[in-house]
Amino acid sequence: MREIIVAGIGAGDPEQVTMQAVSALQRVDVFFVLDKGEVKQELVDLRAEILRRYATKDHRVVFGKDPERDRSTPAYVEAVDDWRRRRADVCAELIASELGADQVGAFLVWGDPSLYDSTLAILDDILARGELSFEIEVIPGISSVSTLAARHRVGLNQVGRPIHITTGRRLAAGWPADADDVVVMLDAQTAFTEHLDQDATIYWGAYLGTPDELLISGPLHEVAPQIEKTRTEARTRKGWIMDTYLLRRPIPKV
Amino acid sequence: MREIIVAGIGAGDPEQVTMQAVSALQRVDVFFVLDKGEVKQELVDLRAEILRRYATKDHRVVFGKDPERDRSTPAYVEAVDDWRRRRADVCAELIASELGADQVGAFLVWGDPSLYDSTLAILDDILARGELSFEIEVIPGISSVSTLAARHRVGLNQVGRPIHITTGRRLAAGWPADADDVVVMLDAQTAFTEHLDQDATIYWGAYLGTPDELLISGPLHEVAPQIEKTRTEARTRKGWIMDTYLLRRPIPKV
Repeated sequence: MREIIVAGIGAGDPEQVTMQAVSALQRVDVFFVLDKGEVKQELVDLRAEILRRYATKDHRVVFGKDPERDRSTPAYVEAVDDWRRRRADVCAELIASELGADQVGAFLVWGDPSLYDSTLAILDDILARGELSFEIEVIPGISSVSTLAARHRVGLNQVGRPIHITTGRRLAAGWPADADDVVVMLDAQTAFTEHLDQDATIYWGAYLGTPDELLISGPLHEVAPQIEKTRTEARTRKGWIMDTYLLRRPIPKV
Repeated sequence: MREIIVAGIGAGDPEQVTMQAVSALQRVDVFFVLDKGEVKQELVDLRAEILRRYATKDHRVVFGKDPERDRSTPAYVEAVDDWRRRRADVCAELIASELGADQVGAFLVWGDPSLYDSTLAILDDILARGELSFEIEVIPGISSVSTLAARHRVGLNQVGRPIHITTGRRLAAGWPADADDVVVMLDAQTAFTEHLDQDATIYWGAYLGTPDELLISGPLHEVAPQIEKTRTEARTRKGWIMDTYLLRRPIPKV
């Protein structure tokens, strides 16, 4: 039976790989990589470094072409579903042609496979088609969210209170109900600037875990301009940015 | 300058420790452990196993007595604040008396230090008193939440949707607004049974990452009795239980 490992490899620091992931990487025959058109060379290099350090068994790395996502449509969910289906086509073809019947394949996922990553949904899609069969093993990884909190040395929750993890798109539409501690991912539009009237503290981080890591924290309305400026400059300089942040509002008095 | 490392050590599997944590553990002179009255011997043994494997430098383990928390009062936040203050008293005394001026101390935290753990707040409290000074380094760990998702091979979010992490106490009071995917921690009262009318799927796990791991998933109203029975039996057999779960409701049609 074919086996496919989906392994979280941390937010960007090769040292964030777990012993469990290291053991798993040593069993892998074929690493699958979906290659985006716009390649972030530093991430490619980082991944190569992780393989160099930990994937000590003789292995191959095979590349598939990541299909384009339609970013023009307002139908976000449908566009992602369609994209995911086309990615599943690419992955199914790679697995069928490159992975032997008793071999172990792997997808490496930045952060943790359970947080805003589509690899598991793609593999479920492939299995549901019924043409290929394989076992899936998922290895949790250190997420950018955990890394953000660690670097700022804060907890994500206040005592006995919830944590809401959401997207920039959703935060722009309004502060979520029932939550004073909000973690925001996938924010290309600095949605925190929509909430400068809130008595909130922001803990922001970019390129977490890497040598280029940026950290800014403080009262939201005070540091928001500094974050916007830093973010724009960094993205211009490096050509890409990955950032996340925690917004913390005091618990309302009862 | 004294240094104190707060390291996440994973949900219960010593293999979930990261390379970063392993490097840090090798620098530690003194491990601090707050010993609860009701000792879960398996967790003590697990922690000892982690030290045996990874803390290769000559070190000491010193124990403080964890103060009792007042669980009778309805003033939950105040009771936790008071408990935290008394824990800070104990930890301050331990650090002052046991950690040399140029030594490295450490607190090991199950899961990830950013999720429902009080170690960072206790250290901040101690620093705020102004009598002791030390650097803090936080090392993120694999949380029980990431482990739960990995073991069930599911993501925590639906496409572009939020994740709400909350407590059993809060879930019992009502399904959180603005969220269809709800992760519940610290639930001593099986609060999911309050929501059997929801069209939800539950992904439940106990003793995650350990040899005694239990996993149940399915439509909430169908598997809830099975989870309750399994949970009661396991807690009776082992004397304690630690569990967590994801409740997933379909996204409402627009």
